[in-house]
Amino acid sequence: MKRVKVSNNVIRRMPRYLRKLDELTEAGITRISSFDLGHQLGLTPSQIRQDFSCFGEFGQQGYGYNVAALREQVAAILGMDRGFHAVLIGVGNIGRALMENFCFSEWGFHLLCAFDIKPELIGTELSGVPIRDMAEMERFLSDNAVDVAVLAVPKEAARRVTERLTACGIGAIWNFTNVELTDPNSNILVENIHFSDSLLSLSYFISERKDEEAIRAAKAEKLAEADKQDQ
Amino acid sequence: MKRVKVSNNVIRRMPRYLRKLDELTEAGITRISSFDLGHQLGLTPSQIRQDFSCFGEFGQQGYGYNVAALREQVAAILGMDRGFHAVLIGVGNIGRALMENFCFSEWGFHLLCAFDIKPELIGTELSGVPIRDMAEMERFLSDNAVDVAVLAVPKEAARRVTERLTACGIGAIWNFTNVELTDPNSNILVENIHFSDSLLSLSYFISERKDEEAIRAAKAEKLAEADKQDQ
Repeated sequence: MKRVKVSNNVIRRMPRYLRKLDELTEAGITRISSFDLGHQLGLTPSQIRQDFSCFGEFGQQGYGYNVAALREQVAAILGMDRGFHAVLIGVGNIGRALMENFCFSEWGFHLLCAFDIKPELIGTELSGVPIRDMAEMERFLSDNAVDVAVLAVPKEAARRVTERLTACGIGAIWNFTNVELTDPNSNILVENIHFSDSLLSLSYFISERKDEEAIRAAKAEKLAEADKQDQ
Repeated sequence: MKRVKVSNNVIRRMPRYLRKLDELTEAGITRISSFDLGHQLGLTPSQIRQDFSCFGEFGQQGYGYNVAALREQVAAILGMDRGFHAVLIGVGNIGRALMENFCFSEWGFHLLCAFDIKPELIGTELSGVPIRDMAEMERFLSDNAVDVAVLAVPKEAARRVTERLTACGIGAIWNFTNVELTDPNSNILVENIHFSDSLLSLSYFISERKDEEAIRAAKAEKLAEADKQDQ
């Protein structure tokens, strides 16, 4: 694929386009204008056109986008057709939720196996995925081409396991541990799911809204006060 | 608090600062320069100074930042001292993982209760949080001041439950359902946790890296070929 340097914001919008296009497909909609697509996503039509222009010309003047074709192109942009291999490290609540509810294959990933240290889990399967002994991780990673490790171990174990993964030459970590793994000297790709970051951003927006409401209320009160004095 | 319009990127970095400052505190570090803080976060010192300047003057020339004071200020910026109230809707794998592993109070939130439709769950507690009948949700929300609903219901139920929450006048939703809830006409704040968006962004970055490696390898091969022909 043609690779130009695309801004992080554009990349982060691609999965949203994909979800929307899947929704449209489900609803039986086969083509859509950039205006309607933008309206449904809270984006301007020109932003939509600009985003896609980073990767080629997908729409057609006066026709809009063919939903199925655009969906396929977005999926290819995101690498969903590459069949990346993943392993999961840590079968606690989060690991279990991922294995039971998150459909890796829907996004083009093969979840090869999971690793844990709990004897009662080792040798069992969950949703058809075998759970192996953490002690075998290094061997498994050297015997198999694994593109991404899904890190769902307890916080305390995050750094030690990351060191082991780095030593194995793993290229990417999908990090659920809420521990900042970024080492400026490391070449590893880390994508974080920080629940708390997300909640705290929401907390910021709620606070902002409450402050704005308080300011409006205070102004209204002042105005009413001034009106009273004028009378 | 003084409110200026702050860019989304700055807001999204605030929780990362908080995590880093907590790490520093744990490591016994009481002050840090913007240079070192930036180095540890993969940001430039001037970006760090700019980010904080949106909210006031926190550092001191030649001294750097007092870790404890900065931590307190970031927490206040994020609204962690406001004691927001939350309810959880849906006690499946994700809901359970949140109740058992995610410490809402650590981030300033009180999780008042959870709602579900499964008779065997209703009336029980998980991590000290009562699970109530989904049918009681409207009454509970009208009797209690709730700032945010954590939405962890199955995909199919996402929109219907959101309509019910909107009708109750809820101000914010923390959305784990992987369904796009944004309605351009709604005033509700929605913060999404889309596991697939995150994985697909990672998928993009892995693809990009593989393509770059392939291009480099092809170039090296061509060069070697040319060298051979020259000889």
